[in-house]
Amino acid sequence: MIVKGFKQLPLCEIVGVVEVRYVDFVNLKYEPSATDVICTFHVEPEGISIKEAAGGVAAESSVGTWTELTTAKPYVENLAAHVFSIKKSTVKIAYPLELFEAENVPNILSSVAGNVFGLRALKNLRLEDIELPPEILRRYKGPKFGISGIRKLLGVSDRPLIGTIIKPKLGLRTVDHAKVAYEAWIGGCDIVKDDENLSNQRFNPFEERLVKTLEARDKAEKETSQRKVYMINVTAETNEMMKRAKSVLSQGGEYIMVDILTCGFAALQTLRNLDLNLAIHAHRAGHAAFTKNPRHGISMKVMAKIARMIGVDQLHIGTVVGKMFETSEEVTENCKALKKEMNGLRQVFPVASGGLYPGIVPALVRFFGKDVIIQAGGGIHGHSDGTVAGARAMRQAVDATLTGTLLDEYAEKHRELRIALETWGQSA
Amino acid sequence: MIVKGFKQLPLCEIVGVVEVRYVDFVNLKYEPSATDVICTFHVEPEGISIKEAAGGVAAESSVGTWTELTTAKPYVENLAAHVFSIKKSTVKIAYPLELFEAENVPNILSSVAGNVFGLRALKNLRLEDIELPPEILRRYKGPKFGISGIRKLLGVSDRPLIGTIIKPKLGLRTVDHAKVAYEAWIGGCDIVKDDENLSNQRFNPFEERLVKTLEARDKAEKETSQRKVYMINVTAETNEMMKRAKSVLSQGGEYIMVDILTCGFAALQTLRNLDLNLAIHAHRAGHAAFTKNPRHGISMKVMAKIARMIGVDQLHIGTVVGKMFETSEEVTENCKALKKEMNGLRQVFPVASGGLYPGIVPALVRFFGKDVIIQAGGGIHGHSDGTVAGARAMRQAVDATLTGTLLDEYAEKHRELRIALETWGQSA
Repeated sequence: MIVKGFKQLPLCEIVGVVEVRYVDFVNLKYEPSATDVICTFHVEPEGISIKEAAGGVAAESSVGTWTELTTAKPYVENLAAHVFSIKKSTVKIAYPLELFEAENVPNILSSVAGNVFGLRALKNLRLEDIELPPEILRRYKGPKFGISGIRKLLGVSDRPLIGTIIKPKLGLRTVDHAKVAYEAWIGGCDIVKDDENLSNQRFNPFEERLVKTLEARDKAEKETSQRKVYMINVTAETNEMMKRAKSVLSQGGEYIMVDILTCGFAALQTLRNLDLNLAIHAHRAGHAAFTKNPRHGISMKVMAKIARMIGVDQLHIGTVVGKMFETSEEVTENCKALKKEMNGLRQVFPVASGGLYPGIVPALVRFFGKDVIIQAGGGIHGHSDGTVAGARAMRQAVDATLTGTLLDEYAEKHRELRIALETWGQSA
Repeated sequence: MIVKGFKQLPLCEIVGVVEVRYVDFVNLKYEPSATDVICTFHVEPEGISIKEAAGGVAAESSVGTWTELTTAKPYVENLAAHVFSIKKSTVKIAYPLELFEAENVPNILSSVAGNVFGLRALKNLRLEDIELPPEILRRYKGPKFGISGIRKLLGVSDRPLIGTIIKPKLGLRTVDHAKVAYEAWIGGCDIVKDDENLSNQRFNPFEERLVKTLEARDKAEKETSQRKVYMINVTAETNEMMKRAKSVLSQGGEYIMVDILTCGFAALQTLRNLDLNLAIHAHRAGHAAFTKNPRHGISMKVMAKIARMIGVDQLHIGTVVGKMFETSEEVTENCKALKKEMNGLRQVFPVASGGLYPGIVPALVRFFGKDVIIQAGGGIHGHSDGTVAGARAMRQAVDATLTGTLLDEYAEKHRELRIALETWGQSA
């Protein structure tokens, strides 16, 4: 890994020196071991070859730097990452397990999703996928409930779950918040959740909201004889978040919601490690700052795998349709990350949320199947007859879809759905 | 904020509906109040006007959604954000203070840096700047030491601080790690730091490293009669991170290092709130996943302000030169964010790190002035005569620069610098 003879280089050519060293991290004959961490990157070099750029990523994210070191030791070379596949711009790198502190998510990310994005020698770099070996996965709890546990909790085994977000997203006072929640549950929602930026503002303080909304839940459960749950947003500084989560438990809640990216993985690990008897709904506010560009950043799939490993029970992964940007390919990949075998960890319930309404339920179910939580905010509270009618319309759309009935046909005998279709239309 | 008559719209035109509502969030006559949070965004619309797109950002990050709501209340409208300036693609939005939980950084980010990046109606969106009012800033401790406190701690008042990162970045065993640290201090470094992805790996466990490296520090202090500090990386799950920080304190350390982005702001707030008598060195591993693209994501300046508010004492903000990508304009902005008046919060020491070596010290000092921590890893340990000589060469470069002597001239009587210049050259 040592190259000599780069004297008197003007600064702008330092990158040229780097190239020479970096190819030493490429070994296309390397066969990853069962304990390696495998990362797939999209790599766009800036003025160097793809091989050099790929090696540069492997070096910077493992044991290399830009110049020869007198402090290098032969035993360190065993820890070098290996580029073992380059196909066009897609590069696969294998990292020895020993590089990481297995229990430490921030540490793993500081290596494979750290400095590498800033290298001057790369025009773009995207971490597309990460495969974590059993040796790492077994250190994590994964979801406490997962899809099967959530279904058991709610007593709903055979249909998508229907959720709503209280709207307006901010500003509603506690009494009005609880009233909207009650109406959504009465109308047929299983789940009511806070919006991602509601926490403990003065207009709707956390503790008061928790108590009042759980009272509304109890009332709705009694009147409907169905299980209803409230996902209150506990996102905050770690200790405050723990306090809020414990408060939810002591008040009889079953669920908490966390903005996993703006709060961060160290705090999410802490929360999950508490192992409270609470399902964790994971919101991904902020993800698109680094997931949206298909050529740079980190894919949502990687975030989904990390969140599942730590142990969230539900995660927003895009809607395919609606107001957010993701393609169906991306959402399919996100879904797989939540559901496919992962060292025995439970499956995470995928959540579709953002600009949804009754007319697109058939398309959603066609895409996701029954194992999806369909959340509509405006698509429920925007119903001209109000929230109860809006929630009914959503349930009617789900019922129609599951019995194979066209929405238009079902709407003939279901007024709420008919109005929703007239208001927002329907997708093909 | 209510618009009627968007019946039977095919899904792809929902965005068209959104436009109509979103302009209601634009009020170019609005004058921000002293308590508003002001955000500057770069906005690139996708098929809608800049005015509509700007309004969309204000709506989604405050009280709006994509459709008319029956649950809206007149009192909520007072909480709407206002687009008050649109100049080409630069949009300024004022958010009423009441929208936020002032003490809760994740909450603030979930609003202003949350869902907005994913809106389908935007091609690109970048949060360029954030101005936080005194009402929010006064809830935070800010840096415990800051530039003046760090200078006092180290007893160095009139020159840049010289730091090194132990290299190879991963893999060195504890005894070798401590030896390299010792040599760097003896050679003239003030600071030795871990690399961002060293935490508690088996090859170099945290507790053992802490003890051995502080022993080396004590020895180096005794031999040089100068203050020397070790910035050990405590990044981990929150409770583990607190434990490690306390351990540093009990072992006689003065400093900790944290990867603030991969660990996350909830945990950073928790750490700072502990208010231990430790300076916090903030590494920004991972930032370029969302800061690198000048048209999408979040600027480093925003992160710098948030980090200062929470209270880190030192922060990596780019090198202008070196292996990382940032332009001098960006680094200048980052620097300002750390130093300019901010409700009386202490100034954060800017850290330049990444591909640095003696030959670029004059350029660095010209750019940063004396208030900068110059960190060189490969640029010290890559010196052909070893780490002691490498550290000496860095100090010689600083000494020459501060006395206005050309490096070439100074090198005539300083062998270590001469070799460094011969090895890596120098910048203009």
